[in-house]
Amino acid sequence: MSVSAAEIVTQLTELIGADAVIGDPGRMTTYLSEPRKRFHTGAAAIATPGSVPEVQAILRWANEKGVGIIPQGGNTGLVGGQVPLRGDEVILSTARLDRIRAIDPAAGAMTAESGVILANAHEAAEAEGVILPLWLASQGSARIGGVLSTNAGGVNVLAYGNARDLTMGVEAVLADGRLYQGLNSLKKDNTGYDLKNLLVGAEGTLGIITAATLKIFPKPEDYETAIVSLSSLDAALRLFEYLRERARRRLSAFEIVPQLGLEMQLRQGMLDRDPTPGPSPWYALIEVSRLTKGASGTLMTAIEAAFAAGLVDNAVFAESLSDRTRMWAFREQMSEVQSKEGASIKHDVSVPIDNVPELITEGIAVAEKLIPGIRAVPFGHLGDGNIHFNFSQPVGADPKTFMAESDEKLHEAIYDIVLRLGGSVSAEHGIGQLKVDLLRQVKDPVALQMMRSIKQALDPKGILNPGKVLG
Amino acid sequence: MSVSAAEIVTQLTELIGADAVIGDPGRMTTYLSEPRKRFHTGAAAIATPGSVPEVQAILRWANEKGVGIIPQGGNTGLVGGQVPLRGDEVILSTARLDRIRAIDPAAGAMTAESGVILANAHEAAEAEGVILPLWLASQGSARIGGVLSTNAGGVNVLAYGNARDLTMGVEAVLADGRLYQGLNSLKKDNTGYDLKNLLVGAEGTLGIITAATLKIFPKPEDYETAIVSLSSLDAALRLFEYLRERARRRLSAFEIVPQLGLEMQLRQGMLDRDPTPGPSPWYALIEVSRLTKGASGTLMTAIEAAFAAGLVDNAVFAESLSDRTRMWAFREQMSEVQSKEGASIKHDVSVPIDNVPELITEGIAVAEKLIPGIRAVPFGHLGDGNIHFNFSQPVGADPKTFMAESDEKLHEAIYDIVLRLGGSVSAEHGIGQLKVDLLRQVKDPVALQMMRSIKQALDPKGILNPGKVLG
Repeated sequence: MSVSAAEIVTQLTELIGADAVIGDPGRMTTYLSEPRKRFHTGAAAIATPGSVPEVQAILRWANEKGVGIIPQGGNTGLVGGQVPLRGDEVILSTARLDRIRAIDPAAGAMTAESGVILANAHEAAEAEGVILPLWLASQGSARIGGVLSTNAGGVNVLAYGNARDLTMGVEAVLADGRLYQGLNSLKKDNTGYDLKNLLVGAEGTLGIITAATLKIFPKPEDYETAIVSLSSLDAALRLFEYLRERARRRLSAFEIVPQLGLEMQLRQGMLDRDPTPGPSPWYALIEVSRLTKGASGTLMTAIEAAFAAGLVDNAVFAESLSDRTRMWAFREQMSEVQSKEGASIKHDVSVPIDNVPELITEGIAVAEKLIPGIRAVPFGHLGDGNIHFNFSQPVGADPKTFMAESDEKLHEAIYDIVLRLGGSVSAEHGIGQLKVDLLRQVKDPVALQMMRSIKQALDPKGILNPGKVLG
Repeated sequence: MSVSAAEIVTQLTELIGADAVIGDPGRMTTYLSEPRKRFHTGAAAIATPGSVPEVQAILRWANEKGVGIIPQGGNTGLVGGQVPLRGDEVILSTARLDRIRAIDPAAGAMTAESGVILANAHEAAEAEGVILPLWLASQGSARIGGVLSTNAGGVNVLAYGNARDLTMGVEAVLADGRLYQGLNSLKKDNTGYDLKNLLVGAEGTLGIITAATLKIFPKPEDYETAIVSLSSLDAALRLFEYLRERARRRLSAFEIVPQLGLEMQLRQGMLDRDPTPGPSPWYALIEVSRLTKGASGTLMTAIEAAFAAGLVDNAVFAESLSDRTRMWAFREQMSEVQSKEGASIKHDVSVPIDNVPELITEGIAVAEKLIPGIRAVPFGHLGDGNIHFNFSQPVGADPKTFMAESDEKLHEAIYDIVLRLGGSVSAEHGIGQLKVDLLRQVKDPVALQMMRSIKQALDPKGILNPGKVLG
């Protein structure tokens, strides 16, 4: 690239004004430090455009000059997709594109700009008596554009689908500054290729999403929430199938947490009291939504029947909003508690749901053999076959030594099992920069060739999020 | 193109054997005559490969020689996508790729080859106690590959989504013979671009789908079916919203038919008796599925309440399977009865659902002003905002004169209204060759440019279904 960092700052300032450009590395911390604390490369500048035409102007300029542009939302990504790889890129923050352009409960659609914080989109929906059912642990910071670009999942995929399923149309600026106007609230539209689904999940490598039309749904009357004790993962799977048969799409969450997860949270003082029915190898957090006019007590009746059938050992039902909040905190704090327990090695994987018990059992056995004392804390979305197969360092081990000695060999062992069971090495977090090499190793080579052809076609100069996803 | 039709037949015969190649135009009728009777171009040959490697061999050869290949399933497409445009193309029929490779009710997935007839896939699912909820009028002939390539909809989109929503993964042969292996039964997989959704709905212009993993669902315990009389389209819309609020995803069909549709069918002797509650401007065919353990009588209770609220004029409930069959025949025969009533002009359009009454009211007014005596028979999927906005010729008019004088000007008038209301000019039938010019006129130019770039990237020689969709 022929443009210096100083020239980049000057030229960006001409385009969008001095207030919208950061050139001083000391002021870039918010944009550069990311949740995994693994990526530490600087950027040439931060640009915070305040309108779609400004995004277009930046991309026209960047494409002409060959400057790499990294779109960034709330900087909550877990695979380094939103931070630099080389150091000469510009981070384009969508933070100022934060308008909710329209919300129409009758049509079941809202249009939000990409910089809207997910929790703010939730509030806007709730103010109209509807829900945007995309709930993530990071929703207080994550922004719509990032959520869509990574095709985020979360805890309600079971009932409502992932970000892709919840997106009806997108508006995006392409590599050369052209504006793709694909906002759309039609249920059916067969006029050519599916560009929406291509842009959603492309991690900002094919275009920068500037706005999206999202599905909104009637707000359930209330929720029934429970934590049950389970003696084994097979029991968890059988219980899930049993409840799905009964509650169908009203079953909105089925999340598992191992005993160690509870012990860690109690030890770290993260729970005011134990939300579970008592010691047990596994817990499942289960939620059923009750619709207007729907009967209540569905979950209790079903779990009582499951108990009689020997599938459940014990259960606690939320009797108040604070009970429900505590139960969800128990699930949502699983990542945070791990960071308090030292270094950890993480795998965001999925397998066909029937294979979840085998995945976890085999994975724990292999890990304990490879690294004596390692503490397995697999948790997450059993109902989607998506497990956050995480491991904490042995108690008392040195974090750096542990990571240096164990990270790669444990990845290899876990991904081997995942692939043998027909699974995916990135279920919901994406590829970013963390998994570029891994993707190259495990993905169908023809699929990779197709992706590269598409990337070349839509971003011939390779300026959009350079080096991410495809390397 | 430098290869003669005779050479094509000889070379294809070398690749896949004489039994699998038709070069005699007299034997091509089944493959060339299509439901709309609008496209009459011949083909250089018909190839009927019996395996995926044979499909690959044909495409490697075609790409080298520059021969156009038109994938064809059941030849039921309504926009000429499956028949030739130039006359020098080869039709590649998927009819012999007709194996169901796997079916796993517990995992909710079946894998079928592209030549499996949709009705046979239904039967295979039902034999395992599950359903493949993709129901179309043409399901006795339509094949999976065509259904997916056109992203077909049908009468149960409301509850289960369209072909794209029901497809988990595809296997496809690319323009140069490479095999994309994207079969997949994972609920979550964020490893790169969404190639599945790009191939689904691409009408065979980006690759030839050879197999797909499809979602299957527990079979409902039974269905409650009714036909109600409605005084207006506004009442129909209000009733739909009322029922959706109550039955949610159990509401699996909400189809409208105008009074003239009933009159035509009775006159043509297509109904053994009137399935409606009596004369009325509009009818809605409504179906609710009852799940295992679900309460029965939901539909009757809801419609009684809607009657009390003044939304419904009258209703008949199916009391037997033969009642239900007759009600569905009434809806499904709408296309067929039009062909008995002379020439017709058709529009497969969608608008945001709130705009359906305006679309139909304005469209009828404009049409009757343009063509005195024209008979409007708009019908279809009100619940998806997707109306088959069809018109039959005036009684006694000459069909050819009618088409010559009215076809274009009526299209223009109807599409004008559709676009003004934020709708789509092809809701579920696709573009094929019929709507290529129309797409060019109405689609976002940047979207068209993106599609052309993708087409060029994946099929640089333009051999896949040449001239379709993008021209």
